[in-house]
Amino acid sequence: MKQVHVEQIQKVIEAVKGKDIENIFFVACGGSMAALSFGDYFVTKDTDMPSFVYTSNEFIHRAPKALGEKSLVILKSHTGTTPETVGAATYARSKSALTVAISMDVESPLCQEAEFTVHYNYKDGSDAIDCEIGIYYTLLFKLLNLITGEEKYLRGVDQLSKLGELIERNQAKHKDVADAFGKKNKREKIIYTMASGAYIHHAYSFTSCLLMEMLWVNSNAIHSGEYFHGPFEITDYDVPFLMVVGEGPSTPLDQRALDFVTKYSENVEVVNVKEFDYTGVDEDLKEYFGPALAGPVLRLYADGLAEHTGHPLSVRRYMWKMEY
Amino acid sequence: MKQVHVEQIQKVIEAVKGKDIENIFFVACGGSMAALSFGDYFVTKDTDMPSFVYTSNEFIHRAPKALGEKSLVILKSHTGTTPETVGAATYARSKSALTVAISMDVESPLCQEAEFTVHYNYKDGSDAIDCEIGIYYTLLFKLLNLITGEEKYLRGVDQLSKLGELIERNQAKHKDVADAFGKKNKREKIIYTMASGAYIHHAYSFTSCLLMEMLWVNSNAIHSGEYFHGPFEITDYDVPFLMVVGEGPSTPLDQRALDFVTKYSENVEVVNVKEFDYTGVDEDLKEYFGPALAGPVLRLYADGLAEHTGHPLSVRRYMWKMEY
Repeated sequence: MKQVHVEQIQKVIEAVKGKDIENIFFVACGGSMAALSFGDYFVTKDTDMPSFVYTSNEFIHRAPKALGEKSLVILKSHTGTTPETVGAATYARSKSALTVAISMDVESPLCQEAEFTVHYNYKDGSDAIDCEIGIYYTLLFKLLNLITGEEKYLRGVDQLSKLGELIERNQAKHKDVADAFGKKNKREKIIYTMASGAYIHHAYSFTSCLLMEMLWVNSNAIHSGEYFHGPFEITDYDVPFLMVVGEGPSTPLDQRALDFVTKYSENVEVVNVKEFDYTGVDEDLKEYFGPALAGPVLRLYADGLAEHTGHPLSVRRYMWKMEY
Repeated sequence: MKQVHVEQIQKVIEAVKGKDIENIFFVACGGSMAALSFGDYFVTKDTDMPSFVYTSNEFIHRAPKALGEKSLVILKSHTGTTPETVGAATYARSKSALTVAISMDVESPLCQEAEFTVHYNYKDGSDAIDCEIGIYYTLLFKLLNLITGEEKYLRGVDQLSKLGELIERNQAKHKDVADAFGKKNKREKIIYTMASGAYIHHAYSFTSCLLMEMLWVNSNAIHSGEYFHGPFEITDYDVPFLMVVGEGPSTPLDQRALDFVTKYSENVEVVNVKEFDYTGVDEDLKEYFGPALAGPVLRLYADGLAEHTGHPLSVRRYMWKMEY
């Protein structure tokens, strides 16, 4: 990892150590909120530290009472310009919280607004450890180690050196099926996603940012545990589902939903994270690496749709084109 | 309120008083989870008590570390038979948490499993104060009063005596437009819902339980604050939206989304909770009564669709018909 990144993350850890932190807020919008949510997932699973996720403007307007000088607020915006997230940083600082901005641009308004900054490289040929997932996971593992004292998270930091290689290998493993998924589903107007545990946040990103935003395909991210309490009635032989079977404690929920959905729909695509290549990752760390690897793999399924629909992922009708 | 209900709620309040409660978990499935979520919304907005919502099986499998003897776990199942929620009660008790089951059937497995029971009447001609919303709001107001010491929640309990009348009046006000909505949208295969704050849980219920489950209409509950970070790209002149403009601090988020969506879609139905009839409710209590009244009003829009599609809300293809 680049020295500047090591130092930025270390400064955050030292700042957290120096304050009596009582709760953590993960605050961002859209895909960035979903990406931060893995932090909330692991904090709630592994520690008794209260942790919350908010979309930035809800955070500002609801004004959660638990936010204060003993709060750690982690914010993220790819460009660092998302106005609601910049506003959330301003609001969190006004409440004396410890604020950390994660962005690819340290000169951005968000990074100017937050007390601490964690930068990541983006599509500049840097190793995965210095890019979005590697940087965030390093921060998370170090935070989890600080809160719990458990050594496994430090092993996690070490094993992140495998991240780039593992992303490549797992992408290679899914390239052809993802392309076939795109071909098979290119005429579909609606594709549901389904997942649980940490992976519900991948389903949310895929639904909101890839299907609805970039591909103009209708969608809804269904929680595998909620499926049987309403949404499953929409299932029919010709209703497409993209199902993530996770690597983690809630896999049985996914398996149960998968058993049902494959019985009544003839168009179910499964991304089985349990079957990913985890070479070099310890058994007890797989559930952390699973969500880290699932994002780049899922992206291929959107690429497949883009290729076969002739609708590039870069096309927008509203975003960046007008004030809103 | 019936004496038995007064006593059940009082027992819960005494039990909470008698324990050093450090966090609250709201645990249920589907529409029951959404209904409980209003509690989480008000607890996070008005108090610094950590509060969390889980769908029952995710709760059991994630096994949040913060759950313990200082936890209050509020569970709900209409019939009290939802297996995942019964399992969640068992799990919470195994962790020595204080468990409260809310159900229409006190003999149900859920009520047998939980330490405390809060019953509500269902479609038996009882006054609204003894039914689902009245009972839950009474419990919530008393809990909020206990945690914060603020008197306004006790005024809230008093003013719940108006609930039945207000539900009727607001339903009467929306009956015709809800029917017209059903007629206008009877051929639609997808209808999006949108809301923020407490009302996102209404959008979730409407999407999951009314549109997808009962009407087999594709849907997704979009958070008004998230709309601009992905989902808004799906908007087009012929894409139907059912938009809830809430009464509460996040109304500006709804208003912003409404301004955009009405510009680019010609089929936006608005349920404006700010314009509801709140006769007899104090100004500072409107944001609590808004979500209580929005449910019965929104139900009319599903009735309108059922009437004009000839697809009764009671029809299912899988639920109650097979093992799953």
